[in-house]
Amino acid sequence: MSLATILGVLSGFGLFVISILLSTDNYALFVNWPSFIMVLGGTFAATFISFEPRYVFNALKVMSSILFNSEISRAILTHEVGRIIRWGYIIQKNGLPGLESDAQKVRKQDRFLGYGIDLVVSGYTGQEVREILANTVETTFQRQVVQADILKNMGATAPAFGMIGTLVGLIIMLDNMGSDPSQLGPGLAVALVTTLYGVLAARLIFLPAASKIKQREEIIRYRNYLVAEGLALLAERKSPRYIQDRMNSYLDPSIHFSIDKMRGRSGE
Amino acid sequence: MSLATILGVLSGFGLFVISILLSTDNYALFVNWPSFIMVLGGTFAATFISFEPRYVFNALKVMSSILFNSEISRAILTHEVGRIIRWGYIIQKNGLPGLESDAQKVRKQDRFLGYGIDLVVSGYTGQEVREILANTVETTFQRQVVQADILKNMGATAPAFGMIGTLVGLIIMLDNMGSDPSQLGPGLAVALVTTLYGVLAARLIFLPAASKIKQREEIIRYRNYLVAEGLALLAERKSPRYIQDRMNSYLDPSIHFSIDKMRGRSGE
Amino acid sequence: MSLATILGVLSGFGLFVISILLSTDNYALFVNWPSFIMVLGGTFAATFISFEPRYVFNALKVMSSILFNSEISRAILTHEVGRIIRWGYIIQKNGLPGLESDAQKVRKQDRFLGYGIDLVVSGYTGQEVREILANTVETTFQRQVVQADILKNMGATAPAFGMIGTLVGLIIMLDNMGSDPSQLGPGLAVALVTTLYGVLAARLIFLPAASKIKQREEIIRYRNYLVAEGLALLAERKSPRYIQDRMNSYLDPSIHFSIDKMRGRSGE
Amino acid sequence: MSLATILGVLSGFGLFVISILLSTDNYALFVNWPSFIMVLGGTFAATFISFEPRYVFNALKVMSSILFNSEISRAILTHEVGRIIRWGYIIQKNGLPGLESDAQKVRKQDRFLGYGIDLVVSGYTGQEVREILANTVETTFQRQVVQADILKNMGATAPAFGMIGTLVGLIIMLDNMGSDPSQLGPGLAVALVTTLYGVLAARLIFLPAASKIKQREEIIRYRNYLVAEGLALLAERKSPRYIQDRMNSYLDPSIHFSIDKMRGRSGE
Amino acid sequence: MSLATILGVLSGFGLFVISILLSTDNYALFVNWPSFIMVLGGTFAATFISFEPRYVFNALKVMSSILFNSEISRAILTHEVGRIIRWGYIIQKNGLPGLESDAQKVRKQDRFLGYGIDLVVSGYTGQEVREILANTVETTFQRQVVQADILKNMGATAPAFGMIGTLVGLIIMLDNMGSDPSQLGPGLAVALVTTLYGVLAARLIFLPAASKIKQREEIIRYRNYLVAEGLALLAERKSPRYIQDRMNSYLDPSIHFSIDKMRGRSGE
Repeated sequence: MSLATILGVLSGFGLFVISILLSTDNYALFVNWPSFIMVLGGTFAATFISFEPRYVFNALKVMSSILFNSEISRAILTHEVGRIIRWGYIIQKNGLPGLESDAQKVRKQDRFLGYGIDLVVSGYTGQEVREILANTVETTFQRQVVQADILKNMGATAPAFGMIGTLVGLIIMLDNMGSDPSQLGPGLAVALVTTLYGVLAARLIFLPAASKIKQREEIIRYRNYLVAEGLALLAERKSPRYIQDRMNSYLDPSIHFSIDKMRGRSGE
Repeated sequence: MSLATILGVLSGFGLFVISILLSTDNYALFVNWPSFIMVLGGTFAATFISFEPRYVFNALKVMSSILFNSEISRAILTHEVGRIIRWGYIIQKNGLPGLESDAQKVRKQDRFLGYGIDLVVSGYTGQEVREILANTVETTFQRQVVQADILKNMGATAPAFGMIGTLVGLIIMLDNMGSDPSQLGPGLAVALVTTLYGVLAARLIFLPAASKIKQREEIIRYRNYLVAEGLALLAERKSPRYIQDRMNSYLDPSIHFSIDKMRGRSGE
Repeated sequence: MSLATILGVLSGFGLFVISILLSTDNYALFVNWPSFIMVLGGTFAATFISFEPRYVFNALKVMSSILFNSEISRAILTHEVGRIIRWGYIIQKNGLPGLESDAQKVRKQDRFLGYGIDLVVSGYTGQEVREILANTVETTFQRQVVQADILKNMGATAPAFGMIGTLVGLIIMLDNMGSDPSQLGPGLAVALVTTLYGVLAARLIFLPAASKIKQREEIIRYRNYLVAEGLALLAERKSPRYIQDRMNSYLDPSIHFSIDKMRGRSGE
Repeated sequence: MSLATILGVLSGFGLFVISILLSTDNYALFVNWPSFIMVLGGTFAATFISFEPRYVFNALKVMSSILFNSEISRAILTHEVGRIIRWGYIIQKNGLPGLESDAQKVRKQDRFLGYGIDLVVSGYTGQEVREILANTVETTFQRQVVQADILKNMGATAPAFGMIGTLVGLIIMLDNMGSDPSQLGPGLAVALVTTLYGVLAARLIFLPAASKIKQREEIIRYRNYLVAEGLALLAERKSPRYIQDRMNSYLDPSIHFSIDKMRGRSGE
Repeated sequence: MSLATILGVLSGFGLFVISILLSTDNYALFVNWPSFIMVLGGTFAATFISFEPRYVFNALKVMSSILFNSEISRAILTHEVGRIIRWGYIIQKNGLPGLESDAQKVRKQDRFLGYGIDLVVSGYTGQEVREILANTVETTFQRQVVQADILKNMGATAPAFGMIGTLVGLIIMLDNMGSDPSQLGPGLAVALVTTLYGVLAARLIFLPAASKIKQREEIIRYRNYLVAEGLALLAERKSPRYIQDRMNSYLDPSIHFSIDKMRGRSGE
């Protein structure tokens, strides 16, 4: 579970609820089902007109994934460099067939890596591996980022439907004003609840989810480019040390992979 | 018919109508022809000044197309890869003339593919096919995306004319306020209906239509690039297996095309 | 004359005037010279500080051009392809000097084409022609698009000065409120007229003009790239059929130029 | 002096002052020192947090430069082409050393041109001259454009501080409303003056200055690319006529430089 | 300490406090803990949902760094050029091993430069050094700029939560209006304080911090590209004078490095 996301959601709505409970006894005022249906219903209606439904369902499924931790951390990047370098040594010793046993394990866990290693084993040149995998990385990223775009779009639509709901309430209220002016205040209060729902849904749900999903996809793309570069260097039969220098250029200097240190450590 | 689009439109307007019917008996309040004419008329007037009329008519025609399903789905992408690979085998056996019978069928159904296959049959090199078709894909996309731009522009113009209508109503109402203050409320209600129309037209019609059209054109462009790459590889006389690996880089790993599986299946 | 533009302007302002005449007898309310001067004067003052005056005058001159039809239509693109292909045949028969008589005619009508044909006749290579003309197309486009940018800027400035005028009116009115509260309504009405002018000027004049000018310049750029590609192919002494295939990649498949059809037609 | 800028500033503020004088006798209402300090002070405080101080001072210095005319006009572009072509003839006659006397004059007037001519005289190849000068042009442009960015940022900050000032005034006024409701109007009037100052400062000073500075820097960049191309062609020892054709691609066809005309004129 | 930043923060908040103290005795009105918690709490909650927590903590740590001076000034750029040129002379005399003693010192101070010099000493070609270091510069910049993006996002979120708080206050107040209309003013005043906090936090803290951090990272990237180019030229064994001309293209002409001047100075 992603503690930060869950705490964020809980504390965001918690602050909101507490500030209401402290300010008024009439907290029922803030629970208004028609407003709720107007905002969420309108947002979903507009979203299903705006995007193909299978993308929308995907976006909602991915949205729930932000409650869990991302699989990729800084440590994993160094780990990937180490793995590629190890493969470099295997190729130096046993040639490409030596990769086969590792390749089989990898294929099940990680489709991208499996596809890449298959290209290397099939004997594609480094440049071909680089081009083919770069194309895979970009098209995968574009497919995934659509979901962040849909959520961002919902984040822009929700306040608009909040405003539409408020306008409806306002018009009805103003029309009645002549007959009963004392209802001006409470009527306006009810109308504004819809705006509140729209802004709240956008700022605590849709926009943050879009942001986190996009950030995670960018990290995955980054990791994939790193791996693709490593596989291309393997296909070019570069020395492990060359691979190390080249792949380190993707890492923060503080986590640069060092063959010497690895040896030292494994030699202990 | 595209169920999602139609349900989206119906439920969007339905929610709106129901919420009004539940809130007030005076629902005639929300039907205001002058407001309607002001918003739609103003939007169309501004659009015809902003864009050449033949593009505007195109945009409106395309807008109605989103009520129908898109022709391109994920399954079609794998199908395209399969077709190109089959052509690869034909060329291996019978040379380029072997494509002629397929080419004739294709020319009628799909102008882009027909143009591409003509280039391959005419003996252009792979690089020439790639460049020429890439140019076709991009210029086609830019021609089509203008329509999404026009609808997006209308989505920005409609609320502005809603606001203009509200300002007109407001000014007239405020001017009369001295003589009859009790009319303040109802007058303001009528003025706000125009804003409501503008926002509603933008959020449930123009912006979603622009979004869906753009998304569909992007998918078509994606499919066309896939096909163009395949045709270029055919022109380069690459082996079917090379074509498979190269084109798979455009597909999600879960739908990668596999010659071996196809054979197994057709061998059953 | 561009019927769409003129009808757009007339119907836009017409709707506005009619809706006012129907709603109030006191239509003098909407004619307020100080507001008019504030919005237009402020917009022009800010524009002359923002841009060099000769560009501003150009922008205003170009703005009036949208009342006339654009010179470039779809038919013209096919026509250009035909002309280049005809020149290809002339070069095949008589060499580059054969172009001279056509070149002289063209030079007077169309400076860009004249410049391009001069390059071809001077014996520049295809790549040189392509680079030099691409540079001309881009620098010309950038020079022209400044005018659309200026009008877009005016479209953003006009509502801001509308708001400034309204603020001035509001401040004066509020200051007097203590002494004579009955003037609140009419005072506010007058103040809001300035906002109305600003939004109206932006939405019916400046923004649409900017949009149409930009669209037209993009079409001209498109046509110029098409012509430049054709001239480069002529300089490379490509066969007319090659030129046809290459240039068709710029056209919609439904208007592809076909040498065979042209021959059939001229043979009738 | 740049007449347009000065007239723009004077007429912008003039219109504003006149419209106030005509509307109210109590024009002292619009002179409010605390509002003035709040808007300008807040804007400068935020700007000094946002940017390194030496860039801010530079931006203010450059801002005053828009009161003067730009040094670069269309005529100068043709003049630059002529100068480069003249140098081309000198190199044809006397080789690179022939440029030395001109180079010395130029070095003092125009550092960019001086640096470029030094590269040519030092014997760099055309491609090296092109790359080195392109780098100089871009890095110079990016250094200069920061100042336009700062002013644009101030143009966004000023209305925000106007709004902050108005909020402060509004809060104080609303809090007093219970005790003395007749002060509502005048209090609100004073509060709104701050918003007015913010919008006015943004629309008549900061944003126009940012726009003009950016436009001027773009023109300088354009001229520098033209000169860089010319110097690269000199380093490549291209013929003057080739230089003419190549550099003309940067100019509007109506001001194309023509060696023949120049000769005709100097021959008179 | 960065005087400008600190003065900016102090004077920004100072102006604000003084203007309040001068305008009202009831300054407690502007200290409202619930509003404060709503704005800051909501902003942080949304930020932790939007971004992985370790990036958020980084962003806050970096935010405090703007209270200190940047390490990179114009003088340092010239200094870097001088150092690379000095290394060029060392390589001319003693070959690559001559760099070793300098390399050791540098590795501890500056990881980027240490990594780069290691590449040169390891014998990579100029082109390899250029590509590897360019990759390092870009990936480092992208990692760092995330922090500016997070702060910018907080700058957009804070006013939204200010508005949410104001809506909550407004709804409660309007609901009570029927029972006690005299509380309208003070209630609205309290509600607006939340909006004030949100705008103030955005305009004096989050947005300026984001701007300054981004600017500093851009300067670091610029310096790193300069150094990377220099190291690549060293790897290509270019002459010191060539290195000088090439690297000067990154500097403002007024601070161009000159070997001759340096010699003259050191010869004194």
